[in-house]
Order: sequence, then C-alpha cells, then structure tokens
Amino acid sequence: MAMSTPAATRVGKADLPRSRDEHDRTPARALGYARRNRARFLGELKQFVRFPTVSNQQRRAADFKACAEWLAHHLSGIGLQARILPTAHHPIVYASWLGVKRSPTILIYGHYDVQPAEPESEWTHPPFEPLVRGNRLLGRGASDDKGQLFVHIKAIESLMKADGRLPVNLKCIFEGDEEQGSPDLEAFVKRNHRALASDYGVISDTRMIAPNRPTIGYAQRGTVRFELELRGAHHELHSGNFGGAVANPLNGLCEMLASLDDAEGRIAVPGFYDDVRDWSDKEREYMAHAGPTDEDILHDAGVEEGWGEPGFSHYERVTIRPAITLNGIAGGYSGRGLKTVIPPRAIAKFSVRTVPDQHARAVVAQIRQHIERVTPAGLRAQLRILGATDPVVVDRQHPILRIAALACERGFGAKPAFVRSGGSIGGATVLKEVLDIPTVLLGFALPKDNVHAPNESFDLSNFFRGIETSIWFFTGAAHAQHSSGKRERSNDH
Amino acid sequence: MAMSTPAATRVGKADLPRSRDEHDRTPARALGYARRNRARFLGELKQFVRFPTVSNQQRRAADFKACAEWLAHHLSGIGLQARILPTAHHPIVYASWLGVKRSPTILIYGHYDVQPAEPESEWTHPPFEPLVRGNRLLGRGASDDKGQLFVHIKAIESLMKADGRLPVNLKCIFEGDEEQGSPDLEAFVKRNHRALASDYGVISDTRMIAPNRPTIGYAQRGTVRFELELRGAHHELHSGNFGGAVANPLNGLCEMLASLDDAEGRIAVPGFYDDVRDWSDKEREYMAHAGPTDEDILHDAGVEEGWGEPGFSHYERVTIRPAITLNGIAGGYSGRGLKTVIPPRAIAKFSVRTVPDQHARAVVAQIRQHIERVTPAGLRAQLRILGATDPVVVDRQHPILRIAALACERGFGAKPAFVRSGGSIGGATVLKEVLDIPTVLLGFALPKDNVHAPNESFDLSNFFRGIETSIWFFTGAAHAQHSSGKRERSNDH
Repeated sequence: MAMSTPAATRVGKADLPRSRDEHDRTPARALGYARRNRARFLGELKQFVRFPTVSNQQRRAADFKACAEWLAHHLSGIGLQARILPTAHHPIVYASWLGVKRSPTILIYGHYDVQPAEPESEWTHPPFEPLVRGNRLLGRGASDDKGQLFVHIKAIESLMKADGRLPVNLKCIFEGDEEQGSPDLEAFVKRNHRALASDYGVISDTRMIAPNRPTIGYAQRGTVRFELELRGAHHELHSGNFGGAVANPLNGLCEMLASLDDAEGRIAVPGFYDDVRDWSDKEREYMAHAGPTDEDILHDAGVEEGWGEPGFSHYERVTIRPAITLNGIAGGYSGRGLKTVIPPRAIAKFSVRTVPDQHARAVVAQIRQHIERVTPAGLRAQLRILGATDPVVVDRQHPILRIAALACERGFGAKPAFVRSGGSIGGATVLKEVLDIPTVLLGFALPKDNVHAPNESFDLSNFFRGIETSIWFFTGAAHAQHSSGKRERSNDH
Repeated sequence: MAMSTPAATRVGKADLPRSRDEHDRTPARALGYARRNRARFLGELKQFVRFPTVSNQQRRAADFKACAEWLAHHLSGIGLQARILPTAHHPIVYASWLGVKRSPTILIYGHYDVQPAEPESEWTHPPFEPLVRGNRLLGRGASDDKGQLFVHIKAIESLMKADGRLPVNLKCIFEGDEEQGSPDLEAFVKRNHRALASDYGVISDTRMIAPNRPTIGYAQRGTVRFELELRGAHHELHSGNFGGAVANPLNGLCEMLASLDDAEGRIAVPGFYDDVRDWSDKEREYMAHAGPTDEDILHDAGVEEGWGEPGFSHYERVTIRPAITLNGIAGGYSGRGLKTVIPPRAIAKFSVRTVPDQHARAVVAQIRQHIERVTPAGLRAQLRILGATDPVVVDRQHPILRIAALACERGFGAKPAFVRSGGSIGGATVLKEVLDIPTVLLGFALPKDNVHAPNESFDLSNFFRGIETSIWFFTGAAHAQHSSGKRERSNDH
C-alpha cells in the first residue's frame, strides 16, 4: 500500500528554543516533534528515493542534478547552510551548522547515489517508484543509503525545530559516487580539509545484525575494484574452424580468474597474505561473543551451505579475512541456444576485499604481477583499477562509540552490538586518513533489506527508531571532548 | 555499391532440350545460361539473404515462414517439385526431380537459417540488408549457407532451363535449424529414409582453403554443445557483506571451466582421449602436404600467435584433435563500472569438438561426470545438452569425390585440395548414418567471408564459379554408379 505525502508540518510556538540545560538533559521536545511528523518524514523519504541516482550509469546526469538540488533545498529548509559542490563525477551536497562554539563538531557522511537496479525483471515493483508494503519502504536506495542518510537529516530537523538550535556543530558531506568507489571523495576532503575539520564522524551505511539489535561498526574491510579484459583474435571466429589452434579469451579468462584463489577461497596471489594481520585470541573470542554466528550469516544470505577459508568462522571470513569476489563476466554469446564462436574479447569485473594491515597500492601491484604472469599465450590482458578503499578500525573503547551506544539504547531500548563490517565505506577511510577523526558506523539497515539486490527495502521501525537514536546521539555528543583548534568554523568551505 | 535486381530472364527457344549425348559431353548450354543470368542470380540471392532467419531467436517465426515459402516457390519455379514440411522447430524445404531412371540420385543438403548477427554494432552495414561491395555480397548468411546453397539451385536452374531436364535425379533438403545443431534433422531423415534414399550426398557449407583453391572436404569434426548453469544464493548478495563466506557461482564457473582443459588446450576430462584415433604417419604426411599450413590458419584467423596441443600442427589441431571452446559466459554485472555483488547464478555455453572415433553419447557422459565431480561446495550445477553431431570421414579415393574434383577443375581451372574440416555439418553425419551414403563437402566459402562473425560476406567469383562447378558435378555424376534398389522414386515423400 502506497502512502501519500502529508502536507509539511509547520513549526509552531511550542517548537521555539529552550534553555541549554533543559536541552542537555533529554531531547524530549525533539523526540516529540519526530514522533508527530513520522508520516511526513516518510513521504519525504519517498520523494528522495524517487530520483534514479545510479552513479555508474552515464544517462543519469539530469537525475543527479535534480536530486542534489532537492537535497540541498531540503537541508536549507531545516536550517542548515547547504551548497552543491561539483566534482569530476556527481556533485557533493555539503551542509553545515556551526552555532555552538563550545561543543564538538560532528561530520556526517552519506551518499545519495544508488546501485543499478538491474535486473529490473526481478523486482516486484518499479525500483524508482517507492511504495510502502507492510512495515517496509521498497525502492532502490531506500536503505542504501538514502534512507539511512535521511535518518540524520530528520533528527537534525527535529532538534532544530524543537529547540531552534543544535546541541553540536555539524558538517554534512552527501556524495553521489559511493557506489562506484568514491573516486572524488578523498581529493575533495583533502582539498577542503581545513573547512571540514571536525571532532567525530558518523556514517549510517551499514547493517544491524538483527532486528532490534542496534549495531555499531568499529571496523570495515577495504576494497580494490578491478576490471580485467582479455583480447584474442580481432573478430569472432568460428569455433569449429579454429577451436584448438587459436587462444580463446573466455577460456583464458576462466583460467586466470580461477588462479586467483583456491576452491576454498584462499587467495593464491603470491605475497597476498604478507600484510594480513593475525588477530589475538582475545579479539577473536570477543568477535565470537559479540558478532553474528555462522547460522546468522547463512540465514542472512539465504543459503543452506557455508563456504570459505578453513580455520575461520563465517563472521571472521567476511571481516578479518580477505576475499576475491567475481562480480561480473561477459564474453561471447549468451542468448538462447548456442553460437559456435571464439569471441575476440572477454571481460571480468572483480573486487578484492582487504583487511588490516593491507594497503590498496600493494594489493594492486600483487594482482597486476599475478595477472601478467598467468596471461596465456596468444592473449592480451588489460587490468584496470576501478577504485580502492583501505580498511579501517576504531578502538571499541573510544568515548564517541560509548555515546553512540547509549543513544542506541535510548532509541531502540536495546544494547548495541559492536561489530566489524565486511563491506567498505570509503567515507570512513577518508575521515580517518585525511581528517584524522574516528568515525561511528551507526547502521540502520537489516540483512533482509536486500541492499545491492532486487527488491531493496528499508524497515520503517528502523527509520523512526534511527531518527530518535540520532537525536540522542547528537544530544550526548555535546558533552564529548573537542579540540577547537582543529575546527575552522569561520572559514566554512 | 548495391546492384539492383534485373528483371527475370525468360527462357527462349535456344534453351529447349537437346539430345542426351550432347548434354553428356559438356554442359555448354547450361554454362552459357548461367553466365548470361549472373546479374539476376545475384539479385535473387540478395532477396534470399534479406530474410532474417536466425534460428536461435524465437521472434523469427514469421521470417522463417516467409523464407521457406520464398524458397519453395523459387524451387517450383525452376522445375522441381517443392514442399514445405513442418518440424518441431523451423520447417524443412524439400524439393525433388526424379526424371532419369538410369542415373544416380544426388541428395543436396543445405540450410537457410543463419547465425545471430549480434553484436550488430560491429557490422559496417545492416546485416539483413545485403549489398554488393567490391566483388563481395555482404550480409548475414551470404556465405553460410544461403549463398552456397543457392549455388546448386542456380546450377539446377541452368541445367533445367538449358536442357529441359537434369542429368541426375535430385532430392534437396534445405533445413532451418542447422545453426542450432539440427535438432530435427536426424529424426526427419529417419522417418523418411525410404523416400530420401539416394546414391550420393553433396553439401556446400565449408570453406576453400584459399581463393582459387577449390576444396573438397572428406572429413569433419563432430560437436557436442553444452550449457552449464551454476546457482548459489537465491538472490544477489553484497560482496562486502558475504564475500569469503558464501560460494560465488561466477568463481565456481571459472574453476569448473578451467578444469576442462589445460593451458595448452589438452582436455583434462578423464577418459576423454580413449576413443580419439591416432592417425598413421602416412595420413599425417598427406595432411601436411595437402592442407593449410600453420601460417595459413593464423592468417585466416587474423592472429599473430598460435596456440594449442603440443605435437600437432594447427591443421591437425582443428581437424584430427578434439577441442573444448567456451562460446559464451554471462553472470553478475558487466555494465559500466562495477557492481559489488555475488550473483545468484552464472551460465556458460561451450562446445566440444570431437574426432573419429569419438561418439557424442560417451563424450556427454564423460563431461557430465567431470562436472559433477568438480562442482564446488555450496553451488548447484545443471548441465544441459544443446545438440550433438558425430564426426564423419569419407574415403578420399571414392569415385564421387573424383567426379567432384574434376568438376572443380572445370569450374575454377584449378585442381582442388582435399581437406578435413574443423567444423561440423550435421547433415553429412545424418546422410552417412541414416542413409548410408557418402557425402561430398564441396565448399565455396573463403576464410575472409567472416562466417559466424560480423560483416559476413560471400565472394561473387566463388558464387559464379561455384554454379559452373555444380553444373559440371551434376553432369559428371550422371555416369557414377547407382543402386536403383535403394531409391524410392515413385514414393517421393
């Protein structure tokens, strides 16, 4: 059932600013505002999801422009200073509010681009026509990352409208190229590192380990994305006339890709494990206690049978162990029936998930050397790097993670799990490496959200509880330590 | 430059029948007729090529109907009895002329279906809008097999119009499913084996080894066509969240396909070479003398570097040695950029080229066992057989091959080469196995015809010389031995 968008709720007198002390204790007015405006918040999220901002499709430029303008206008509307900043790819929407000198500055990172919706035939409804079914909002990007990003926007609106001010200073980076590896983000943050100086980062682009189990990420794998192209003859050849005497790019591609790892997923590229950290028994015990079980992970994946590197749990396999995943192969004829050709070229896309203390540069060099060594005679290989993000770990005892944990308890009524993430959030890496700040990965997605898959959706309980959690987080963060010297409030961008 | 279709030439008094003796000596009147009508013949071939009879595309049913009707009408028009016979797939066009009791019966097999034209973007012109450029007719099917099939139709027309009769009895099978492995042909010929009884077969669906080097095929490889599908999770998974703990159908497919052969193309399936014949040194010397050189084959393929099983020439590799060729792979995301997914399924199409004394049934069993053995944990494999044709060899000293050789000398002014073919012509297998007749593979295609590839074309010299060769062949075949008991002229179909 689709819900219509209610008319925008006006800010009344009851929403005027209150004293700082009152605000500090409990954000009751903001919470009340958020609860009263749930239907409108949902309607606005549907507007946001409606933009088909698929960052790896060239035809979407106008959609990105429209979405960035909508987002910037929305941020201005709730009282932030918002700007649209061009990059070599899609624009970054930047917003800030710097009204409380003695409080720390929080940097929110999110992304408004989404994964492709293909194959659209596997969706039960059009991916960019969001609708509510049961307690879920369906649509590409509903969870990753428009819905989760919007959690914070609505928390900010609630605080601002309830109190006329925020408990912390705020800087927001909402980028449009995360799903293609954030090609401009690092350069953008480096270029503006003084303006972007902050105390803590918060990113909501990860998953809760289960419903009602709020989850704080303290580590993530890195990723290096590759495209491998093999070329043989200059045009298609008849496989009868030439099969056996001319190297076939498809056969070669399979051999080369198969050589990257063994049948159990252990990577066979020489030197690959040199920088992979061996974690202490204590840390592995913590992970076994705090993280998802093998059964949880298999259940989330919807598979009956596990697989992977011997000697590690599934949770370890997807967080502290690297993996090579083929993401796509194309070559030759794959329509109905069979076409007896030797194709002139074949292409594979694959990603390498890296872990501490690996670095993308070394991994690229190792993969490149391996590919050169295993390229069969008669074929020409070209390896392209499509993107790279290094892994990140934050100390679980850091005060900002404790504040986030308390916010989760208030928002969800449950203590959060502290987990590592298998995916890569380039933003967290950049915030760590360029701005030298720790980032809280405060994820509100669920395994059944079908992130990156057909029929993506977002749990509306998580949307609304997330907003309350975010209100509590900003409120609590007001008391966190901050180093004013690192901030450049007067020189905002 | 496109040539227009001239108005049909009328048969004048000079084309009336002459005495049998005169006809036997030399088919001068038929040759003259063929030479006078070249422009019209070419125009008619263009009409034939214009039908997009792509047999592995379901949307082409109406095109097949129209093409079969055009072809049957054309055959009736030149004096044959023609019929359109339905099959489970596309119709067979059957035609016959049985007017000379004491002469042998020749069965012509050809196919009017064509390969897909994809990728159409690599064509320099629309594939089903045939046009003449230089001395070539461009269009999908111009060479394979519409043009070569039409060579015989125009020879028959020339003989019929010049003499009012043919020197031999004739049965023609023109099928519409050769490019998808002739799924109905064997059953059709078995069902009608009495009506189809003949003395010799002739098929023009192979290549000359070089321009001006007419070529008679006496052997061909078989082929078994497979489709392998691997399934893992039920839907796409995020490769960050699950990479390393869930089996990936693409990784598995690469491993399994890579296990089929080694890096030099030697097939690694247990038992695969048990039935592969070791040819005598004498035969291999003949092949080295009569067949194309390694350089010829590399030149034809347009590649600089050879590849293949050690210890064999390229000609041997593509004729007396088996090969496994991947014809297509699809799975995951292969568009621009990269999509970080573990796909739920991946599919490969591959063909196994077989040689004497291999049989499809044994090869299927071997491949099936191998696939079952190498399917990785966590994945489900399904192997489908898309078609199978066994290899065929004809004695090079057979009288019908000698008659064909003489016809080539007359038609091209050059002695023919006797060669083995790497491809598979299901028709020749069926004629051998069901009707027990030897078949002459009288190919008029050239390596540069781009058969099965974009920009297919047919050399017009070969078209016209082929027609004269065919006229000489039918004329010479009148004197070949025949066993009237095997024919059922009065019960034609």
